[in-house]
Amino acid sequence: MNSFGRIFRIQLFGESHGPYVGVTIDGCPAGLALTVDDFEDDLSRRRSGAAGTTDRQEPDVPEIISGWHNGRTTGAPLTLLFANKDVDSTDYEPFRAIPRPGHADFAASKKWQGYNDLRGGGYLSGRLTVALVAAGVIAKKLIAPINVYANLIMAGGSYDIQEAVEAAVKEGDSIGGLIECCAQGVPCGWGEPFFDSVESLLSHLLFSIPGVKGVEFGAGFDAAEMRGSEYNDAIISPAGKTKENNAGGIIGGITNGNDLLLTVALRPAASIKKIQKAFDLTTEKELGFQLSGRHDSCFALRAPVIVEAAVAIVLADLSFLPIIAPSQ
Amino acid sequence: MNSFGRIFRIQLFGESHGPYVGVTIDGCPAGLALTVDDFEDDLSRRRSGAAGTTDRQEPDVPEIISGWHNGRTTGAPLTLLFANKDVDSTDYEPFRAIPRPGHADFAASKKWQGYNDLRGGGYLSGRLTVALVAAGVIAKKLIAPINVYANLIMAGGSYDIQEAVEAAVKEGDSIGGLIECCAQGVPCGWGEPFFDSVESLLSHLLFSIPGVKGVEFGAGFDAAEMRGSEYNDAIISPAGKTKENNAGGIIGGITNGNDLLLTVALRPAASIKKIQKAFDLTTEKELGFQLSGRHDSCFALRAPVIVEAAVAIVLADLSFLPIIAPSQ
Amino acid sequence: MNSFGRIFRIQLFGESHGPYVGVTIDGCPAGLALTVDDFEDDLSRRRSGAAGTTDRQEPDVPEIISGWHNGRTTGAPLTLLFANKDVDSTDYEPFRAIPRPGHADFAASKKWQGYNDLRGGGYLSGRLTVALVAAGVIAKKLIAPINVYANLIMAGGSYDIQEAVEAAVKEGDSIGGLIECCAQGVPCGWGEPFFDSVESLLSHLLFSIPGVKGVEFGAGFDAAEMRGSEYNDAIISPAGKTKENNAGGIIGGITNGNDLLLTVALRPAASIKKIQKAFDLTTEKELGFQLSGRHDSCFALRAPVIVEAAVAIVLADLSFLPIIAPSQ
Amino acid sequence: MNSFGRIFRIQLFGESHGPYVGVTIDGCPAGLALTVDDFEDDLSRRRSGAAGTTDRQEPDVPEIISGWHNGRTTGAPLTLLFANKDVDSTDYEPFRAIPRPGHADFAASKKWQGYNDLRGGGYLSGRLTVALVAAGVIAKKLIAPINVYANLIMAGGSYDIQEAVEAAVKEGDSIGGLIECCAQGVPCGWGEPFFDSVESLLSHLLFSIPGVKGVEFGAGFDAAEMRGSEYNDAIISPAGKTKENNAGGIIGGITNGNDLLLTVALRPAASIKKIQKAFDLTTEKELGFQLSGRHDSCFALRAPVIVEAAVAIVLADLSFLPIIAPSQ
Repeated sequence: MNSFGRIFRIQLFGESHGPYVGVTIDGCPAGLALTVDDFEDDLSRRRSGAAGTTDRQEPDVPEIISGWHNGRTTGAPLTLLFANKDVDSTDYEPFRAIPRPGHADFAASKKWQGYNDLRGGGYLSGRLTVALVAAGVIAKKLIAPINVYANLIMAGGSYDIQEAVEAAVKEGDSIGGLIECCAQGVPCGWGEPFFDSVESLLSHLLFSIPGVKGVEFGAGFDAAEMRGSEYNDAIISPAGKTKENNAGGIIGGITNGNDLLLTVALRPAASIKKIQKAFDLTTEKELGFQLSGRHDSCFALRAPVIVEAAVAIVLADLSFLPIIAPSQ
Repeated sequence: MNSFGRIFRIQLFGESHGPYVGVTIDGCPAGLALTVDDFEDDLSRRRSGAAGTTDRQEPDVPEIISGWHNGRTTGAPLTLLFANKDVDSTDYEPFRAIPRPGHADFAASKKWQGYNDLRGGGYLSGRLTVALVAAGVIAKKLIAPINVYANLIMAGGSYDIQEAVEAAVKEGDSIGGLIECCAQGVPCGWGEPFFDSVESLLSHLLFSIPGVKGVEFGAGFDAAEMRGSEYNDAIISPAGKTKENNAGGIIGGITNGNDLLLTVALRPAASIKKIQKAFDLTTEKELGFQLSGRHDSCFALRAPVIVEAAVAIVLADLSFLPIIAPSQ
Repeated sequence: MNSFGRIFRIQLFGESHGPYVGVTIDGCPAGLALTVDDFEDDLSRRRSGAAGTTDRQEPDVPEIISGWHNGRTTGAPLTLLFANKDVDSTDYEPFRAIPRPGHADFAASKKWQGYNDLRGGGYLSGRLTVALVAAGVIAKKLIAPINVYANLIMAGGSYDIQEAVEAAVKEGDSIGGLIECCAQGVPCGWGEPFFDSVESLLSHLLFSIPGVKGVEFGAGFDAAEMRGSEYNDAIISPAGKTKENNAGGIIGGITNGNDLLLTVALRPAASIKKIQKAFDLTTEKELGFQLSGRHDSCFALRAPVIVEAAVAIVLADLSFLPIIAPSQ
Repeated sequence: MNSFGRIFRIQLFGESHGPYVGVTIDGCPAGLALTVDDFEDDLSRRRSGAAGTTDRQEPDVPEIISGWHNGRTTGAPLTLLFANKDVDSTDYEPFRAIPRPGHADFAASKKWQGYNDLRGGGYLSGRLTVALVAAGVIAKKLIAPINVYANLIMAGGSYDIQEAVEAAVKEGDSIGGLIECCAQGVPCGWGEPFFDSVESLLSHLLFSIPGVKGVEFGAGFDAAEMRGSEYNDAIISPAGKTKENNAGGIIGGITNGNDLLLTVALRPAASIKKIQKAFDLTTEKELGFQLSGRHDSCFALRAPVIVEAAVAIVLADLSFLPIIAPSQ
């Protein structure tokens, strides 16, 4: 499905080399002040330009084509378009016969029986995340003063990230990374277990970000190595604040009033300049394979704001669910 | 939300100390042969009894009260009930004032304004997973010959699991664990990215299992430390088989015809016999706290079949989504 | 689908001659006072017993098996069961070969490939509406002081309903009827057009009631014969009250603060004692056909409370949708 | 909600006087041949121009901006935009204080707290149906050879429709109408009762069309006046064909293999040139009110193709639901 959310719902569309990528937000309340400039801070964090990011340059100025009037949202579906302007002319069709290593070329061609748009990954492209970040901008406004922020804390196994990126660029290789995210100020009691636990909803959206292969909350995988006497967070205030935060602010699938903490693992980008092994489906033979073109050596550099967007979108949706006890 | 799935939909209900826990499965096709005995193998794997598991003994014989006629499913909603028979009489109400460390007592009482059933965790209890395992039995039948199996590969930091459990029991403590799961025979092309990537759907359901704090696919968190030249799986057959399987059988959010591989991190059980620190919300003071009662020292021992159920349920739902190209 | 609703969600299950019919309500807020006796008034209005209704006698006392503790809802899924006690022993399997006129025997056997439970109509039985009425009782509590009431205003073409029923009973025939429903006190601004207009949501649930073949709002079908100058309701108060109510309280798919008015058309019951023509699928020949058994001559007599339930359930769900304008 | 459908899902957006109205179709299979010209036949039937329709002239040429490559659908979300070109410059803001009779001005301003776009009705405008008709074009292709067709059979109480329209135009008034729709070739067994009966799904979408106030299937409201012996359709062939079709091809909420028949009642358009009574919310006084501008005297003339679209969209969605009995 290309929509997500129960009350605050987003629908993505567009392809990497099509005319636009975009998002329609259904369920955004009326009256939210919004200008095209509001998107620039977050979009610039996602934009390429730094060493280790692709040479593709997109201005990423949103066109707001519905749900917006006199500088405010109207309550009707809010649609944002981002034109694709810097599209290269490589012919991607050969990748149906010789799928690019690490890319979805084979699986996607099977799934859509060869009719999918392969250019730049088509729909399965990181390009789509520009629309996700834009939806995140709206979501962050709606959940204020909740503050969501994420950082790249490791790349390719190194905590000296600049050095790691430079090495990868030099080798024509790519590297993955770890992104840590925190949401401060989330009220106690959000989340809808059994199935819509906060972890369930967040991981659902986080794992839709291309390249995410792991998600953990609080102590996460380390918790598997801990004892209860170590892991259990002791409450130390009437508001439920805990001394440690191994639970990452979520207990029983519900927020507990502490900081929401999560970590996301990103695999390295699939496209590299190094020669790799590939398989020719026509000849049924293995062969050496080298990609040209413009690619991210470390797209994890651009990902923290995408992770923030995903977290903010889930929190915005949860914020609209009623917590009501009848008076009688 | 307490329902999950798009075509094959499950709705859970019940509390740990209520009369029943149960599940209604909506969208199960008609004509599936089914007997009460079909559930026993999987339910026995979840059942307590081994060292390190709780003393609560439940026979877990399902009553099929709808959607079933003459030994087969009818196509109507299929409802299974499991009676709670071995319920202890501890008074849980004091835990509203002094929330048990590591439990959701505080967050849940806030969320439901004190009206939630705290007994045995109420709705937020591992007891609910008996119904999930039962739904998994149905799902496994529907996706055959796809084979889903999971194992506990580490507990409390140790690969000698028996030893680790014994040590935890002796200390009156609890331990978490790692569960590895594989699904063999999943066709290429399942998954509905952008938002319903296979990872998104699986993690959604996996993180609804009480105690899960981390989920990764294929190389997972290790991928964050790898280079593209290392991570990219090289195709070696016309069917898309790859030499390595760092992607865990999922690429671009779509299955690629290889084994689906995932790992789940479980935190240690919250209830332990050791003295812990707690907080008295009435006096607003910290205090020493010790739990009596029957508890799992290592509920991870009982969890592999629950992980299998979650994976099978997601695959069953995906199996019903059409992959159709029109003829014209 | 056997679930309905976005926040206040109901899931039906059970068959006419199975052990139970029931409903799970997901999204009912915690703290609602509820006793088994609360259901009796509405269930008694649905119950048979009057002339023109079936001889099947069911006590219809709900068992509340989840989501309820200390006389109040807990916020967890609320499940109600109704035992089927007065089930007759007729063999329904012959109706696969010779489908009963006016019944779904043929279509249902095709759909579910002969595996459906035909006994008493199985899942496609008016018996299921006992669970709908029960959900309606909860919904009515939640939307108070909104007042929903419905009446049978015509039966079999006659406004002297008692006389019409007696005639039908005497002839061994059945009659349909018209039910008028009003909801007073619905606030202005409910409804989620485009697709979830109030009319859309109400008609969705109303047309799921077995036997409903027409739904209209306000002037309804008469509006097709009117001129705008006649139809348009003139506002006469600052609260938006209108002099006439041709719109039935809904304009642009949104409630406008006036009484919500709708009419439902029920076809006559399918089962009659008169000899009818049927078709033998084995011999491929038409034949004369006569039903024995216990049936409603005018189930429309029992239907007003079912219509009320449907309306109240939709309004309860709408009542939980946020209408929020951000402060900034 | 502004999306509809379970597998074949549509999301509408846009306003009457905004830059575009559009639709994103999620779940459209890959490989469907599609050109911009394919839309012209249906769009021209919805287009104004005839006597009794508005003077607003829109070319209605869709821009396909996603999900389409090399003349075929790709399986990714398919987005169509329709530019609004012929927008008049009337100031609609005064209608917040003096709501136009028969329009949603009052209710919508309340709902969205004055932030909604009132121009031309904003989101609550028949203009949105251009996108619905476009989605219907796709749906019709997908369900071929099922044939859906609709006709205006009555307008303003008259069966001489041309005459009725001319009279209304002359008087500066508007008239409603009745539209009859038939779908031929629908297989037996579609529909998902209890809640997603065919009637429920169809009425849901039909009642989202602006101006629809009544929907009936088969004999519909007449069924309320019939006896069972009259109403019950006798099967006359092994394929389930019936002699009469009082059920409108739907029994137990499931298609029965006969023509699907339904009738839709449209109220007269709200905008008329005649002087009407209105209410000034500022002065709290009634006043005479006259609208200028371009309006439909009988928008029912343009509606049959919209009804067809709604029916085709529901059938397309149903066509993707599996009807499967396991082999074992």
